[in-house]
Amino acid sequence: MVHLNALIHEGDNPDLTSERLKASFSTESLSETIYGGKQKLLRRREIVMYVDEHKELHDEKPVEFMTREERIENAARKVVAMRKHYYECVENEDPAETHYFQMLCTHLDGMPIGLHMGMFLPTLYTQTNDEQKEKWLAKAANLGMIGTYAQTEIGHGTNLRMLETTATFDRASDSFVLHSPTVSSTKWWPGNLGKSSNHAIVVAQLYIDKKCYGPHTFLVQLRDEETHRALPGITIGDIGPKFGINTIDNGFLRFDHFKIPRSNMMMGHSKVEADGTYVKPIHAKVGYGAMVYVRSVMTLMQGAFLAMAATIATRYSAIRRQGVINPGQGEVQVLDYQTQQHRLFPQIARAYAFYLTGKHIRDMYYDVVQNLSEGNADTLPELHAITSGLKSVVTHQVGLGIEQCRMACGGHGYSQASGIPLLYTVAIGGCTYEGENMVMLLQTARFLMRTAAAVRSGKRPATKGPSQFDYIFVAGPRQCRLGQAMTAGNCVPAMVECFEHVAKRLTLRAHERLELRKNEGRSKEDAWNDTAVDLTKASRAHTRVFIAKAFAKAVSDIADSAVSKAMTDLLHLYLSYEIVEIGTSLLEDGFMSGEQLASTQKAVYELLAKIRPNAVSLVDAFEFDDREHHSVLGRRDGHVYENLLKWAQHSELNKSDVLPAFTKYLGPMMKEARSKL
Amino acid sequence: MVHLNALIHEGDNPDLTSERLKASFSTESLSETIYGGKQKLLRRREIVMYVDEHKELHDEKPVEFMTREERIENAARKVVAMRKHYYECVENEDPAETHYFQMLCTHLDGMPIGLHMGMFLPTLYTQTNDEQKEKWLAKAANLGMIGTYAQTEIGHGTNLRMLETTATFDRASDSFVLHSPTVSSTKWWPGNLGKSSNHAIVVAQLYIDKKCYGPHTFLVQLRDEETHRALPGITIGDIGPKFGINTIDNGFLRFDHFKIPRSNMMMGHSKVEADGTYVKPIHAKVGYGAMVYVRSVMTLMQGAFLAMAATIATRYSAIRRQGVINPGQGEVQVLDYQTQQHRLFPQIARAYAFYLTGKHIRDMYYDVVQNLSEGNADTLPELHAITSGLKSVVTHQVGLGIEQCRMACGGHGYSQASGIPLLYTVAIGGCTYEGENMVMLLQTARFLMRTAAAVRSGKRPATKGPSQFDYIFVAGPRQCRLGQAMTAGNCVPAMVECFEHVAKRLTLRAHERLELRKNEGRSKEDAWNDTAVDLTKASRAHTRVFIAKAFAKAVSDIADSAVSKAMTDLLHLYLSYEIVEIGTSLLEDGFMSGEQLASTQKAVYELLAKIRPNAVSLVDAFEFDDREHHSVLGRRDGHVYENLLKWAQHSELNKSDVLPAFTKYLGPMMKEARSKL
Repeated sequence: MVHLNALIHEGDNPDLTSERLKASFSTESLSETIYGGKQKLLRRREIVMYVDEHKELHDEKPVEFMTREERIENAARKVVAMRKHYYECVENEDPAETHYFQMLCTHLDGMPIGLHMGMFLPTLYTQTNDEQKEKWLAKAANLGMIGTYAQTEIGHGTNLRMLETTATFDRASDSFVLHSPTVSSTKWWPGNLGKSSNHAIVVAQLYIDKKCYGPHTFLVQLRDEETHRALPGITIGDIGPKFGINTIDNGFLRFDHFKIPRSNMMMGHSKVEADGTYVKPIHAKVGYGAMVYVRSVMTLMQGAFLAMAATIATRYSAIRRQGVINPGQGEVQVLDYQTQQHRLFPQIARAYAFYLTGKHIRDMYYDVVQNLSEGNADTLPELHAITSGLKSVVTHQVGLGIEQCRMACGGHGYSQASGIPLLYTVAIGGCTYEGENMVMLLQTARFLMRTAAAVRSGKRPATKGPSQFDYIFVAGPRQCRLGQAMTAGNCVPAMVECFEHVAKRLTLRAHERLELRKNEGRSKEDAWNDTAVDLTKASRAHTRVFIAKAFAKAVSDIADSAVSKAMTDLLHLYLSYEIVEIGTSLLEDGFMSGEQLASTQKAVYELLAKIRPNAVSLVDAFEFDDREHHSVLGRRDGHVYENLLKWAQHSELNKSDVLPAFTKYLGPMMKEARSKL
Repeated sequence: MVHLNALIHEGDNPDLTSERLKASFSTESLSETIYGGKQKLLRRREIVMYVDEHKELHDEKPVEFMTREERIENAARKVVAMRKHYYECVENEDPAETHYFQMLCTHLDGMPIGLHMGMFLPTLYTQTNDEQKEKWLAKAANLGMIGTYAQTEIGHGTNLRMLETTATFDRASDSFVLHSPTVSSTKWWPGNLGKSSNHAIVVAQLYIDKKCYGPHTFLVQLRDEETHRALPGITIGDIGPKFGINTIDNGFLRFDHFKIPRSNMMMGHSKVEADGTYVKPIHAKVGYGAMVYVRSVMTLMQGAFLAMAATIATRYSAIRRQGVINPGQGEVQVLDYQTQQHRLFPQIARAYAFYLTGKHIRDMYYDVVQNLSEGNADTLPELHAITSGLKSVVTHQVGLGIEQCRMACGGHGYSQASGIPLLYTVAIGGCTYEGENMVMLLQTARFLMRTAAAVRSGKRPATKGPSQFDYIFVAGPRQCRLGQAMTAGNCVPAMVECFEHVAKRLTLRAHERLELRKNEGRSKEDAWNDTAVDLTKASRAHTRVFIAKAFAKAVSDIADSAVSKAMTDLLHLYLSYEIVEIGTSLLEDGFMSGEQLASTQKAVYELLAKIRPNAVSLVDAFEFDDREHHSVLGRRDGHVYENLLKWAQHSELNKSDVLPAFTKYLGPMMKEARSKL
């Protein structure tokens, strides 16, 4: 028998099966929407089957039970195995398939070549000249060396210009001398730097004849290729355990007058010639696109993280029974509590909103890259502006959402068996890396302030094609139209107007306050800092506009009417929930009335009840394999308790009944105490 | 030279010293306020010195670098050492001194006798009869045995009535037979159950002649006292790694028809006689006080957690320099950014608010205990109502606040060297244990709904003395009085009115909606569930009233005028920040105007600037010893970077330059790849 929910199997926990039987839409159809069509979905399933069948791609025990050394060794073993199976399993080196194959093998736990793939190789591709490409690319691409990207220093993060590591040109030996002059100049944090990599792209201040030319990049060999020992002049190691990502050997690195050939400077753009002549890059912003890349895919990645947490918590809430609502009717599924729905369903909605917005952004990115390759940088600023805001808003909301999902699992959510602690620590790192969130919001704010200045001056800049800032130039309705002469079907435009109104108002208000501070005599920079919190508020509001529109657009593009209906409920929940969240800004200037807000809140409650029967199927449609979330609570089959017991057997503490802690300490102590009674 | 900040030492990081020199008040005086007077503060310092001088009370290396087995062994070692030094160091078994001594030795990392001290012993004291006290108390108190409290089962948490473990009376052998009939009945989660304890108080359903008498408590020996092996009929072990508290061996436990003597049932209240006669307890709610105890001290504990995180992040923000505000003036302390202040200072304010409210609650608790001992339970419900709400609101805000502090430390916040990951995982557990937060809010809501019914019916119940609910019966102003005919000095009452107004309105609205649902024909229980989210909102609002009043009262009690001034700024920040946070509820019914809200927001910004010079001194006044937070970033002396480097040397990965991961896997792989070039 064919069910609307494609994940029903015989022998599953009956509570989950009965949830899945309630689906009002085909999960398969929604999965196709998520992953870009039937063919891609089928390929995903084939990859799952392939990985299932090859034991050497699996972990012998859950990584949570391994020491860091074991985790790193296990990950290295899998890298070798993945390399062996890659062409067998992945078609045409397709990036999405590659990513999925890797995800199934390493889940969220990282691997020793993560930075090599994500940063080292792309830098080699984009920043080298032809000679360098010839020399390094094949070797790096075939894993003849492992590299990383060493930028951050212990005392310097976001502000690149203040990096202290020096690369001093030595004309006599035609080389650069790399040096770490202070403690605070120690390279610190780069992934895979501590132990795995034998090469790194190092960012250092270029000095020629005592003149500083600012930060440049250099390919540096760190370790002997045969023995892997650190080369003389190099001090290198692991920076110790972190909140998460402990399989990754984030490292430190110090140079003691370490020489590299002049030809190891990345010469694709700027150059130093043998006589010490410095040749400037042609475009100042070359390589800018690569920086925006990670931010461009972060929204998608973070959406997937939240979807995973929501999958775990929603499935578990369907099989967990606790407490009685109506006496005599037995314990209920915790998913029946309104408080639980109010915790979880907005997370499902946000997961979809972010994931679908992320797909949109990824497409924008490909457009920008295409345009750049044609010498056209016009679309880059739009991408830069929104990815900065998205990075900040999405990582923040995803972090909060994952924690809500974890707590919705009660005590078991706190166990690593839930998979959510690892998920949280991986996801929340996104608030900090690739540009700290506050800094990112202030970048978006620069665009908004430019827009506000144009609005105030009445001089709208000419843009080619539509811009995300267009709405700021348009006078919207003075009163929120929610509930006025609208059928339920077309409330979305009125809701989007709410976000636009707030973003517009907060942008213009921040601009006004900024100008006021300047007029009061503060320097431009001080005025900016005095207004910074208001600026971040404007950026967040603008980002909400973008997500609301992107999500609404994605839902309106769904052809399957049953899927469209279910997703429209989720969209409505998303929009209503967000409106309640920014209620203050909507009420403050009288745009929205108290009654309208109250109706929106009521709509949230009604939507929770409406979504309840589809909840499990909505998360199922992401089709996360158990290997991906590797959560006992989130298992597809719902057999949680017996597998929690099995999982716990791996604990190192369970290897012997009596620990040395007893024999050496607690036993003698108790014995002595008893002897005195 | 005597400085106003008592923590200035020669050789400290000059950035921290110059911050400390800015103090406008005596930190010593504020510390005395926090810890209850000069004498107690001095004793704390003596305890620090004592622990400093005794090496066996220290960790050989930071616990973050130890495996779980090593951590448990290390903690057991320290328990023996602490027992040896206890009477030497702590005066008259004073509970506050005991707690501090333990904190300095084990910081947040837990110990194998945590549950013994916190749950096992108190249960023996309160639930046994005289004969049992005689038999067990001395032995337990002297650590002749180690016990824990085994209640939660793998399938059952909050809802005690559904526990499945059975204790069946066997008349023939005058014993109870303990049994775990299902997988879901497995005891799961109790701290120190897995490996450390040899006894437990077990909660099980009492059966006599096939009749169930509900859950009762039994003292059960789990392991042989000499060999520590699990006794036949008992399966026991560790449940595996968790988000945090990994030094604690939370355990599982299964019984296979395990017999214990009848006299091992806790017979202080209910009883089973030799012939199987069941004797009911006299008071139904006996032991209720003990349950409220943990919740009563949680506010204090959580306040301290947040204060610790704020200490770490504020000190670090004073020594971290990054980015330039005004060109040519060098990199600034990140504490100078408004966004950073807006992240951190409200956390400092909340830390004080919670800590001082916590002290108030602890005093309420002692009153209740005193009253109970005189046979008067009148004050218990008031305590129960507010501790439920506080537990939920405070743990939630503390969790968010700690994460803000962590992220305010940028990348280094993510390292375990910051101390904040451990702090967060320990603190956030509080959202789940001792009654899940949503359940707790709904308990407070029951009191609020009773109050609302009384308001509606016009029948105010007679209470002895003032009640936290009094304000709900009083008509407050219809319009917010902020900014109206008030000097800056007395804005506090008008601010408190804001919280009262919202709590009152949300309480009455929830009650109205509850009644409406019932009138629509929903059962009382369904109506409650339909209104649950509104009910939690009312509870949170009520709790905010309580905290605002308690904090305001505590500040108004400060005699030292300089301290009072600094703390008043913090109180104003707390209140203003909270008002902005609940802006929606204040604007929704027109109580507050948009202008009033905007002024409050402006006041927040002004207060940030005003508090800036005192920020470090305000956290310093908590006088956390470096041993307590054991954070490299939060060191009193501010020497962060060199100590991060030192800290990292402990990493197991740094024991050898080349790991097996290279020799076994990555090395051969790269070599093979190079051979093919």
